[in-house]
Amino acid sequence: MAQTKRFTQVNYSINNMEILSGVEIAEKRTEVIKAAVAELGFSPMLMIVRVGERADSKSYVNRKVGYATIVGIETEVAHFHESVSEEELLEALARYNVNQNVNGIIVQLPLPKHLNTKKIINAIAEHKDVDGLTDSNISKLFDNDEGVVPATPKGILTLLQSYKIAVSGEHVVVLGRSRLVGKSTALLMLNQNATVTMCHSKTENLSTITKSADILIVAIGQQKFITNEYIKDGQVVIDVGIGADLESRIVGDVDFSSVKNMNIKISPVPGGVGPMTVTSLFENLLFVTQKSLGGTDK
Amino acid sequence: MAQTKRFTQVNYSINNMEILSGVEIAEKRTEVIKAAVAELGFSPMLMIVRVGERADSKSYVNRKVGYATIVGIETEVAHFHESVSEEELLEALARYNVNQNVNGIIVQLPLPKHLNTKKIINAIAEHKDVDGLTDSNISKLFDNDEGVVPATPKGILTLLQSYKIAVSGEHVVVLGRSRLVGKSTALLMLNQNATVTMCHSKTENLSTITKSADILIVAIGQQKFITNEYIKDGQVVIDVGIGADLESRIVGDVDFSSVKNMNIKISPVPGGVGPMTVTSLFENLLFVTQKSLGGTDK
Repeated sequence: MAQTKRFTQVNYSINNMEILSGVEIAEKRTEVIKAAVAELGFSPMLMIVRVGERADSKSYVNRKVGYATIVGIETEVAHFHESVSEEELLEALARYNVNQNVNGIIVQLPLPKHLNTKKIINAIAEHKDVDGLTDSNISKLFDNDEGVVPATPKGILTLLQSYKIAVSGEHVVVLGRSRLVGKSTALLMLNQNATVTMCHSKTENLSTITKSADILIVAIGQQKFITNEYIKDGQVVIDVGIGADLESRIVGDVDFSSVKNMNIKISPVPGGVGPMTVTSLFENLLFVTQKSLGGTDK
Repeated sequence: MAQTKRFTQVNYSINNMEILSGVEIAEKRTEVIKAAVAELGFSPMLMIVRVGERADSKSYVNRKVGYATIVGIETEVAHFHESVSEEELLEALARYNVNQNVNGIIVQLPLPKHLNTKKIINAIAEHKDVDGLTDSNISKLFDNDEGVVPATPKGILTLLQSYKIAVSGEHVVVLGRSRLVGKSTALLMLNQNATVTMCHSKTENLSTITKSADILIVAIGQQKFITNEYIKDGQVVIDVGIGADLESRIVGDVDFSSVKNMNIKISPVPGGVGPMTVTSLFENLLFVTQKSLGGTDK
């Protein structure tokens, strides 16, 4: 396979800022994942459950399948019709749970409204839960116990660590409180001994709080919401947003044009947290695979 | 039964401060609990599992049993020998789970070291988990889904609500990150739309952060740690600490003598969060009992 760029990153005219390149770090991690797969001596298999015809879900699944190919991991996509019953999905998951050829399972979210998402996620065996979203893995995150950490928070932490940005004792402000990102990231950063503030739509004096952060993590899903009014020089800014602007360009929750002359470290969109999330997912697959083999963790 | 004072509160010489009396609120809640039990038409039964001979555990269990008597709730204490095996405990819990006469189950913590606490707690059926500590209830707290909220956080929220202290949009700073109190309280306050900061032993510039709080919740288990240097006028201070000073008096994490001239609202120790925790536990028992009857929740 030709050596092609696996991840996309925009080009910036950078002044005082330092770009935290998820692309560069993900490229390095990819080599580590390849080596780990080679060392296993077999290709782990990831079962991906997809329901219905959402274009975004299909695109995300395809991205995972494509990445898996690069690192030598097998995937199987179990594609169910939009009208699949809960029972049918639960039965399928029960089969994957006991199938020794399946090392990890993910259910691409969101699911159609008639399905109980929580029930279906919890039907994944803890030791195959690559997304880290079962009750038992959420509880482990809460307890700072060694479980599977959801891919986006894990990717954010890896990005910070790769740039040798300290977390312990630092004030991390998390903007947004989704299950998948905001709250999981807050708990993960707390487990890393950060002082953590959780902000959201009801927060008063938001800019005062965001400016008090050493590390600001933005995951509100509102394009270009964070301008230079919310940021001060010297901060680290992690942008978890992903959306498209009026010209169909991919943009994050930070208004890059507004902050581009600031003296900050920032993860761009695209090319920041996105690639890290992909590599983290497959690191999770390796983690559960090695664990089930009784090998050393992480 | 003679009308005796059910909870203890010290007497303070109060200047500008307002005492948030857990005693007074708990007395009122006790009447509500009694009425709710009467309306049920039967006495709910709480099974209390106690292991070994820890004096503090015995004392806590006795307090619960005594309170239950007052409100018309039945209790049964299953007392196991210090050396009980995990299997024996799990078998007992499995019996209580299916026993229709048992409405709620609590396992008094801490357990002896040879027992896997998490495994044992998770053996309690979710619908009988009065302490709210199973993975499924922790996950519900994380998801802001309607589950059983651990008694201390619930008691803190009830105390604030009883004094009509707003939480939504306010900055709540939680000091301490235990499973039972700190982290559970942080998530509960987040679910109530507070902006929440979690601080702990690794937090830098602690007094700057505690002074930025609208509501400061202290649960670090260090007697008299919080002096007037950490507090500013106008704040609400909730003291979850409970310890004994050199004269064997019960004291909290706040140095009361240091803050007594400040213009703050504060929950005292004893007589603040303690009584609220007791009533909240039995409110949880009523919650699961009513839920299992298919009645309205809360």
